[in-house]
Amino acid sequence: MDQEKKLPRRAMIKAAAISATAAFVGKVNLPATEQPTNDDPTKIQGTPPGKVGTRSPFEQPSKKASDISGRTPLQDLYGIITPSDLHFERSHAGVPAINPDKYELLIHGMVERPMIFKLKDLKRFPAISRIAFIECSGNFRSGKETMTPQEICGLTSQSEWTGVMLSTLFREVGVSPKATWFLAEGSDAAVMTRSIPVEKGWKDAMIAYGQNGEAIRPEQGYPARLFLPGWEGNMNVKWIRRIELSDQPFMTREETSKYTETIKDHKIRQFSFDMDARSIITYPSYPQEVEKGWIEIRGIAWSGRGKIERVEISTDGGKHWQYARLQEPVLDKAHTYFRYLWHWDGSPTEIMSRAVDDTGYYQPFLKQLIDARGAEMGGYHLNPVTSWLIERGGRVLFKPEKWK
Amino acid sequence: MDQEKKLPRRAMIKAAAISATAAFVGKVNLPATEQPTNDDPTKIQGTPPGKVGTRSPFEQPSKKASDISGRTPLQDLYGIITPSDLHFERSHAGVPAINPDKYELLIHGMVERPMIFKLKDLKRFPAISRIAFIECSGNFRSGKETMTPQEICGLTSQSEWTGVMLSTLFREVGVSPKATWFLAEGSDAAVMTRSIPVEKGWKDAMIAYGQNGEAIRPEQGYPARLFLPGWEGNMNVKWIRRIELSDQPFMTREETSKYTETIKDHKIRQFSFDMDARSIITYPSYPQEVEKGWIEIRGIAWSGRGKIERVEISTDGGKHWQYARLQEPVLDKAHTYFRYLWHWDGSPTEIMSRAVDDTGYYQPFLKQLIDARGAEMGGYHLNPVTSWLIERGGRVLFKPEKWK
Repeated sequence: MDQEKKLPRRAMIKAAAISATAAFVGKVNLPATEQPTNDDPTKIQGTPPGKVGTRSPFEQPSKKASDISGRTPLQDLYGIITPSDLHFERSHAGVPAINPDKYELLIHGMVERPMIFKLKDLKRFPAISRIAFIECSGNFRSGKETMTPQEICGLTSQSEWTGVMLSTLFREVGVSPKATWFLAEGSDAAVMTRSIPVEKGWKDAMIAYGQNGEAIRPEQGYPARLFLPGWEGNMNVKWIRRIELSDQPFMTREETSKYTETIKDHKIRQFSFDMDARSIITYPSYPQEVEKGWIEIRGIAWSGRGKIERVEISTDGGKHWQYARLQEPVLDKAHTYFRYLWHWDGSPTEIMSRAVDDTGYYQPFLKQLIDARGAEMGGYHLNPVTSWLIERGGRVLFKPEKWK
Repeated sequence: MDQEKKLPRRAMIKAAAISATAAFVGKVNLPATEQPTNDDPTKIQGTPPGKVGTRSPFEQPSKKASDISGRTPLQDLYGIITPSDLHFERSHAGVPAINPDKYELLIHGMVERPMIFKLKDLKRFPAISRIAFIECSGNFRSGKETMTPQEICGLTSQSEWTGVMLSTLFREVGVSPKATWFLAEGSDAAVMTRSIPVEKGWKDAMIAYGQNGEAIRPEQGYPARLFLPGWEGNMNVKWIRRIELSDQPFMTREETSKYTETIKDHKIRQFSFDMDARSIITYPSYPQEVEKGWIEIRGIAWSGRGKIERVEISTDGGKHWQYARLQEPVLDKAHTYFRYLWHWDGSPTEIMSRAVDDTGYYQPFLKQLIDARGAEMGGYHLNPVTSWLIERGGRVLFKPEKWK
């Protein structure tokens, strides 16, 4: 925060001077208390507390995108926490209604002691909390200029997840040293299943029952889900009811006909788990408009492979790049908020961000993805640099790029 | 998280073995998919996405405490983020309904350029986000054994706050070097006012308009509030509409007749800003019950003066103390989650936690507060060690201590 102090004072004054509304007040009149109007909230007794709080009626966010998905309205949000009711959702047969008292998780297969855990059993084990993102591997859309960050990549969200480490449960059931994969099965009507390398289970997988301080929300797997930090969303099986240890993958529908990527030479990339580093400028973005002068460019960057090392910003269509300021805390496998103070002279231009993670990986341009995977590449794991066009009048438009 | 791996495996097995419900499964039958019942969620198409998500109908948290306050249900929560709709609230004339397009913040008094900022002006300045708590200085209740953490100290909550540094606005209006105090005035019907040393404004005060990723909630000051990290809640003026710079405090009602503490010898302590270090065990606590065996003691610790350095736990009524494990991230002036794995032998006992912050301050026992301030001490800034009595059968009760 000390960086604020380093901003040149002249710049700040100018920022206000060109603002359409911030106004110098030549002579200060009596405070508004002395000047009641119909709009004066000090003249009306306010609302007493309710059982839970509510949003202002002036705030009407929406995540709904279709009958199978909801997308986080990134362009309307601040910071790194996604409100739980705006977390993206993607389900294959809707959200099941599960009675937590009847919930059971079976762990069996290549284990010494197959066991069934009720929710209260899971909660009794030592727990951890972790702020991290989940992103759908199909999180890229393009095609027209009037697309918002929500439409382009709103299938990523971040929560503080709480639960038991899967490694704790693995020790409990005595996973065989010969087990190399496990199946995770959901209790939705799609009976979502995925195969996961057992190493991930020992390393950092969780069975999460808490989200942003409270019970996990139904859309995110109530009462418990698998959480695989940094790995594609679909594998983080929601409403998890069964884990089966094996010495081979299970080749389920969701890793054979779906969630595989066509690449060059008619090849298919299967079991592509990690979500690569990515960023998006959420302000300014469509449908926002800007005014000439100082603009704080804002957005989020994240990587499924580690921490965000830096975010680079170009305000001239990619010719020059500068470092954005990263908002602390910068966490592992987590959305990281970035900011970059820019003086816009009013000329049409193109702004973009690219993330670099602590493995040294650079977020690619779409062209680089095409070069690597071929024009026939599929729609999963696309993390290209996103550009916004700023028109002379301050209108901001997405710069869609086609690849097929 | 690596610490999980260090837990002795025998301990973990024992934890499950004594659990009433976790069950060994001798022979694994067909998975539940093959055994449909009326309760089987896999046989019913689930719910499609809504505009926003909802809680499970099995989760019915409530913060409502009275017509003037709501308290965070700490005993039901996990981690460090408080869901925005469960953030505590304390208002002096209810929650005003404010149209953000009509919102204005006036800064005047000992400044070069008195100015009025609209909400869009505030949002245009360079911003910061910060995860930190707000706690009411009257956050202590005692009196009977059947009190929950929510009732004892539910007037503390934590959010990720986003806004503009007040120092940025101070530079904008040109605060006089002779100004030593400022008045913050809210636009609720109580027209809440407090005097604040100007140093706090230069150091880390914010005008916050974002909370946990979205617009600040009405109960927390929509569309903008003053946020003074670590200082008593009441000074963090909500619905802020006016800041007046001066060279002396304003001696408002809320710092003379209220929010001052009676201490020894008929003296009054005024302008006690910082919230001292504190902790509370939220599990196990009343009305929870526990079983013999391994119990993860969990809770939160915080300090308005810095970071939590450590949390010490006693499971024998204060005779011996051990260090709890602190959950990362441990942030400045923020709720920090702690955990301590304890084997309960089933005997009646008393458990408690005490926080130590990075200034070296130890959370006091009530007796120490009485020794320092006298039995006539008032009800503000009480942060005593909280004890829970565990009865032979596993019932958990608050240990209330009287001081007058």
